[in-house]
Amino acid sequence: MKILVINGPNLNLLKLRNPDFYGNNDLKSIEDTLRRRFPDIEFVFFQSPDESNIVKRINEPAGFDGILINPGGYSHTSVAIRDALEICPLPKVEVHLSNIQSRDSFRKVSLTASVCDGYISGFKTLSYILGVHALIDLIGK
Amino acid sequence: MKILVINGPNLNLLKLRNPDFYGNNDLKSIEDTLRRRFPDIEFVFFQSPDESNIVKRINEPAGFDGILINPGGYSHTSVAIRDALEICPLPKVEVHLSNIQSRDSFRKVSLTASVCDGYISGFKTLSYILGVHALIDLIGK
Amino acid sequence: MKILVINGPNLNLLKLRNPDFYGNNDLKSIEDTLRRRFPDIEFVFFQSPDESNIVKRINEPAGFDGILINPGGYSHTSVAIRDALEICPLPKVEVHLSNIQSRDSFRKVSLTASVCDGYISGFKTLSYILGVHALIDLIGK
Amino acid sequence: MKILVINGPNLNLLKLRNPDFYGNNDLKSIEDTLRRRFPDIEFVFFQSPDESNIVKRINEPAGFDGILINPGGYSHTSVAIRDALEICPLPKVEVHLSNIQSRDSFRKVSLTASVCDGYISGFKTLSYILGVHALIDLIGK
Amino acid sequence: MKILVINGPNLNLLKLRNPDFYGNNDLKSIEDTLRRRFPDIEFVFFQSPDESNIVKRINEPAGFDGILINPGGYSHTSVAIRDALEICPLPKVEVHLSNIQSRDSFRKVSLTASVCDGYISGFKTLSYILGVHALIDLIGK
Amino acid sequence: MKILVINGPNLNLLKLRNPDFYGNNDLKSIEDTLRRRFPDIEFVFFQSPDESNIVKRINEPAGFDGILINPGGYSHTSVAIRDALEICPLPKVEVHLSNIQSRDSFRKVSLTASVCDGYISGFKTLSYILGVHALIDLIGK
Amino acid sequence: MKILVINGPNLNLLKLRNPDFYGNNDLKSIEDTLRRRFPDIEFVFFQSPDESNIVKRINEPAGFDGILINPGGYSHTSVAIRDALEICPLPKVEVHLSNIQSRDSFRKVSLTASVCDGYISGFKTLSYILGVHALIDLIGK
Amino acid sequence: MKILVINGPNLNLLKLRNPDFYGNNDLKSIEDTLRRRFPDIEFVFFQSPDESNIVKRINEPAGFDGILINPGGYSHTSVAIRDALEICPLPKVEVHLSNIQSRDSFRKVSLTASVCDGYISGFKTLSYILGVHALIDLIGK
Amino acid sequence: MKILVINGPNLNLLKLRNPDFYGNNDLKSIEDTLRRRFPDIEFVFFQSPDESNIVKRINEPAGFDGILINPGGYSHTSVAIRDALEICPLPKVEVHLSNIQSRDSFRKVSLTASVCDGYISGFKTLSYILGVHALIDLIGK
Amino acid sequence: MKILVINGPNLNLLKLRNPDFYGNNDLKSIEDTLRRRFPDIEFVFFQSPDESNIVKRINEPAGFDGILINPGGYSHTSVAIRDALEICPLPKVEVHLSNIQSRDSFRKVSLTASVCDGYISGFKTLSYILGVHALIDLIGK
Amino acid sequence: MKILVINGPNLNLLKLRNPDFYGNNDLKSIEDTLRRRFPDIEFVFFQSPDESNIVKRINEPAGFDGILINPGGYSHTSVAIRDALEICPLPKVEVHLSNIQSRDSFRKVSLTASVCDGYISGFKTLSYILGVHALIDLIGK
Amino acid sequence: MKILVINGPNLNLLKLRNPDFYGNNDLKSIEDTLRRRFPDIEFVFFQSPDESNIVKRINEPAGFDGILINPGGYSHTSVAIRDALEICPLPKVEVHLSNIQSRDSFRKVSLTASVCDGYISGFKTLSYILGVHALIDLIGK
Repeated sequence: MKILVINGPNLNLLKLRNPDFYGNNDLKSIEDTLRRRFPDIEFVFFQSPDESNIVKRINEPAGFDGILINPGGYSHTSVAIRDALEICPLPKVEVHLSNIQSRDSFRKVSLTASVCDGYISGFKTLSYILGVHALIDLIGK
Repeated sequence: MKILVINGPNLNLLKLRNPDFYGNNDLKSIEDTLRRRFPDIEFVFFQSPDESNIVKRINEPAGFDGILINPGGYSHTSVAIRDALEICPLPKVEVHLSNIQSRDSFRKVSLTASVCDGYISGFKTLSYILGVHALIDLIGK
Repeated sequence: MKILVINGPNLNLLKLRNPDFYGNNDLKSIEDTLRRRFPDIEFVFFQSPDESNIVKRINEPAGFDGILINPGGYSHTSVAIRDALEICPLPKVEVHLSNIQSRDSFRKVSLTASVCDGYISGFKTLSYILGVHALIDLIGK
Repeated sequence: MKILVINGPNLNLLKLRNPDFYGNNDLKSIEDTLRRRFPDIEFVFFQSPDESNIVKRINEPAGFDGILINPGGYSHTSVAIRDALEICPLPKVEVHLSNIQSRDSFRKVSLTASVCDGYISGFKTLSYILGVHALIDLIGK
Repeated sequence: MKILVINGPNLNLLKLRNPDFYGNNDLKSIEDTLRRRFPDIEFVFFQSPDESNIVKRINEPAGFDGILINPGGYSHTSVAIRDALEICPLPKVEVHLSNIQSRDSFRKVSLTASVCDGYISGFKTLSYILGVHALIDLIGK
Repeated sequence: MKILVINGPNLNLLKLRNPDFYGNNDLKSIEDTLRRRFPDIEFVFFQSPDESNIVKRINEPAGFDGILINPGGYSHTSVAIRDALEICPLPKVEVHLSNIQSRDSFRKVSLTASVCDGYISGFKTLSYILGVHALIDLIGK
Repeated sequence: MKILVINGPNLNLLKLRNPDFYGNNDLKSIEDTLRRRFPDIEFVFFQSPDESNIVKRINEPAGFDGILINPGGYSHTSVAIRDALEICPLPKVEVHLSNIQSRDSFRKVSLTASVCDGYISGFKTLSYILGVHALIDLIGK
Repeated sequence: MKILVINGPNLNLLKLRNPDFYGNNDLKSIEDTLRRRFPDIEFVFFQSPDESNIVKRINEPAGFDGILINPGGYSHTSVAIRDALEICPLPKVEVHLSNIQSRDSFRKVSLTASVCDGYISGFKTLSYILGVHALIDLIGK
Repeated sequence: MKILVINGPNLNLLKLRNPDFYGNNDLKSIEDTLRRRFPDIEFVFFQSPDESNIVKRINEPAGFDGILINPGGYSHTSVAIRDALEICPLPKVEVHLSNIQSRDSFRKVSLTASVCDGYISGFKTLSYILGVHALIDLIGK
Repeated sequence: MKILVINGPNLNLLKLRNPDFYGNNDLKSIEDTLRRRFPDIEFVFFQSPDESNIVKRINEPAGFDGILINPGGYSHTSVAIRDALEICPLPKVEVHLSNIQSRDSFRKVSLTASVCDGYISGFKTLSYILGVHALIDLIGK
Repeated sequence: MKILVINGPNLNLLKLRNPDFYGNNDLKSIEDTLRRRFPDIEFVFFQSPDESNIVKRINEPAGFDGILINPGGYSHTSVAIRDALEICPLPKVEVHLSNIQSRDSFRKVSLTASVCDGYISGFKTLSYILGVHALIDLIGK
Repeated sequence: MKILVINGPNLNLLKLRNPDFYGNNDLKSIEDTLRRRFPDIEFVFFQSPDESNIVKRINEPAGFDGILINPGGYSHTSVAIRDALEICPLPKVEVHLSNIQSRDSFRKVSLTASVCDGYISGFKTLSYILGVHALIDLIGK
């Protein structure tokens, strides 16, 4: 099983962000945790602040069984990523480190979550682990 | 470990609801699945269409380690359940069977999710399983 | 033919409400009128200020051929009753004594009417009689 | 007893409209049904796509005992018809074939219903029959 | 000097409308008053509930020196009359019998007033007299 | 003089709520304070998280001279309690421990306050004492 | 007959404002015109940029038969002047030099016009003259 | 091939409208251009300021292969024309001379365009020519 | 103990205002009532229609123990008074004679109440008496 | 004549999108169609999911006579592309394969169309052909 | 060079306001700083909580070369000051001590900034210094 | 001292933009002006239409003492740049050439300004110079 993990802008700098929202792990340690917890899954990690690179990645799903995506700030503004996810035939799960329902009002709307199979928000690193569990289940269907 | 699982109105009739949104399991089979998947956890299952009964249940957290709640239609309208959850000192996770971001607009706002630790939406029965995983993690902290 | 007639909060006190909106009959006399006008129909009358009791009643449609409901104030706020009505496979008709389009703005939205077969508003006691006529027609289809 | 039945735009073409909303009868058969069901009432049927003709008709209530109106699309946009109805001293009932609460959002507002005695929506041909029952009751008062 | 006086829907029935808003005069007596007060002006009075007839009248300004218009309910809904007035090269004054700022909220917006030279609202018959004074002044410029 | 004191959901758990908003007293001590401060008044204290129980209580005003109500979260969502208060012929005063104008935006609207004689917000236990003073005055009128 | 003419802020500087909106006359010449056109009326002219002075002036209507007011920018923001006008028992007419329906959107709402007998907008100096005509008529009633 | 070309209110007076928006041609020259550019197509040109006449025309599609419509001001307000177009089984194309996205905000919503096959806006006379090209293509499918 | 009582615009004219909202007392009798009810408190009464005078008064709290303010119309519009209250270190209570939740919608928002300790609305003269009780309590803390 | 054809995100994957909206052709076949239909025009085709690459392309108009652009999802969100188009001195036409007025509400606003000469929506491949016709006409002016 | 520096309500009490927003300087020290930094400029400092005094000051620009204004709370509510600034022919710069984009939502709109040449917000005392630099530049043009 | 100056999309083409908004200088001359005015500061100029490149630049603040940013069109739409700025520990100043409060309504909201220390808008080239002055001051703290 091969899963594409996409992280959007500023997730490369987790160490600098508010730990109440984002936890204490950086992206590298989240990736290590996923690899350790799911040794039988091949992960491809992709982080980019570039909306178009994210669209391109989603546009080329060949070889993958599912997509785990944290679009960061693009969740709330990108029709382009939303459309790319809608087109993509793979199972898709959106995750957020923080509970986006309890932050700024412009973070409450997620254009992208509405075209994923489901979404998980607020559990910090665990959001990613749960997201992979959900993908395994969806892929197995 | 002892977890209180609260289900709101109409979740007793899952069999009759749209399977595209709610899946094919009824509440009983969801409960059985949780018991089977987490044999070491003691679950107390509580389903009620009664806003006040749900408030009362949340008001009496003694003896529990965490709350898994699917408030159903009350997610979008109940300040009373929201306040009860905010007061409650236990870890709390909100789950939804369906992806509420992709349904009626009045289902997009969740007053209750904003005072839980996190929320999970769209994975049908799996939402509950993932929710328990999240609770175990939160309780362990 | 057996019809369940559900009345929501405050309809037990019609005598005290504005007769311009609600007419001069109390709930008892409305019930008597229905029985007199439709002697061949078995009516079960249920009045409760309790959102959850109303949900429960709608959740147990066995033995009935149709539902006539005046949700009162819950028309405008209850997603729970709305969902219960949507699940219920019986013909359903919503009635209001007053013309709710000509009163407070928060009475203009009816969450529950949108999942009934139809609705009737403004004819005082006659709204109920017309509602039963509509149910007879819907049940006969 | 003499009742004026006014139908607004596009109701002449019911056969071509979505039967889920409008039923299978055309306007002619609705009119025949009314005549058959109420042989003692003299009906004058008036259908026009013309807002001003509808206003004029309502402006000349002499000789009629009540008005049954389905303003069609004008329900949602015509202040002129609304004002004409408000001025008119006859009993007035608004009917809709479809349940307008469960369709496009621009159909939820009815400017005209707020100045009628009451309104009935969603019962297809039966909406008209119920409407006449309501008028008989209102005229008798 | 020749002035076209246009009255929209329901102004033919002033006698039936609320005298607090509309005063005690009917349209005929308003017209007589104008003729008596301005004997040197040739008035052409045009009343119609028909949006298109009003548009047509405004589209043919030849021979007139100014337009006095009370669009009635169309003030708030007609882009067509608004566009016709904007095209028309004559001086134009909008009048209302009632003070439309102090009535229903849907009467506060006047699409048509924004393309007239000015507007006068609330003085009953006097609104028309003042409107003619304004036109005389505008025509004289 | 006999006063009914109604407290809505979560007011039984004041000890657990933010003391900046709710003060340091629990409901029991508020009740004791009222009894001590107004020894000549017979108080009936009623606390329930149940919207329908609150409606029922308000529906049965016999024997009471006035109602002091803190609807808690139901202030902002319950048309049913609002209607019950409107029907009730007793003097009615709404109180809040916290200043609801300075908290979440969804707490700024009080459906229920608009049908009480007046309301008092922000003085913690003192809100109740002042509310009883107001009731004594209103009852005396 | 004695009329109080109130002008709000910036009307002292008409010469500097856009002549398309405000015409070519300054306030002095508007006052002279009024005196010349209505030699039998005693005018008291009051111009102030001070909301409270305007309120005070309206609070002291003794000796006057009517008020002509151009509140300028306060039309759109002053609840205080609105309340003062509402209390004042004299006939009241609001005037504007420019057509405020065709300018910035924040100028479309006039809080103050809704409590005057009527209003006149868009005729530059003539707005004042027409306003006096209207006052004479209202005073005569 | 026979095409019905419908033009709404004020399009008879193009010469008088702002040439930046509407170009320099009048309706007659647009019609001549269409006839010259498409000699094999039989055009029936219909212009009316009358909403009901436009509805009637659309209600009688017999003999035509397609409809080209410029509803003018009715694009933004007419539910009646919208419904007529929705019912009509012919290919339908909406055209506008001006770019309605770059004008007044009340021109941005087109109720009617949403039920046409497509729409073309901003190319002046060319909008009509392109619209006919589109109809030829749609008719040929 | 020395309390500053501030009254905003139009409260000098209570006699002329709607007694259903404002009661039958004028400001003088309210002041007398306060002096009589609280003989041990030194009151300084200040009434002004002048936003800036009110700001200045609040800016100079030296010598006072608390402020009782009825900002009248400025409650809804004055950021300046709001900021002055926020800066002021004294206990502050806002009072209204009428129940502002049950009047015009523009009276529902109180910018100033959100920075006071609490507010009291709807009890006519008694609002002031209760407000002084609240101040005594707050000062004593 | 040389025309730049810009396609935004996800238009490379037309084959995978809903054919009801997007038709059955892929981008390659649309490009071939344009070349075949307009053999005398030199087309430069540019497709990118990258907002900045699209901006850059529009920033370098040298050598081109016109721009045909389908901004895809960026139509609704990109102020940057809007500003680039506004600066660009070439004729510009926006095209959409689907009728964006009849889809999700967030697709109804097109920031970019308002700064093009015109736009064409809903004709699938034909939208592009018509767009080129429009450009030829605009370039010839 | 002579510059008028206008400060609105509550700026006299900077010492008492939140230093995170307003810094540690009082108005006097800001004035001293300006004089020290710009010894060749003659400053006239004017602080008032009085909207009308500010309007009057702006209405009398004779002798000044430019205006530096911090309208405080009036930025968000005063059409009167906005109009006075618009009329005034001098260069005008608006300054704020705090970053008003990051505070209460009612502080985000600045009616007055839109008619100044530019505005500067968030730099505490430095906002004033930068504002004077801007004025020098604008005056020199 | 080393300052990073970031310019967003379309600022490379200033020469082509409306000089009333943007002034007569191109980006190169603005850069030269900064270098000449601040010879002791090392500037790194970065212009890109690429949201992700801007995010990346802000993500790598090492070696810089402050950031001056003109996000252009991204000010109003980019949560990604907003988050990057919020994370960045350097002093940050936002500048705009034009006064964005006096242009299109979609330019009034600046997501990015709310996380900078302050912002400066409307002074054309001078906005940059003032912004550097502000940075020097902030860096010195």
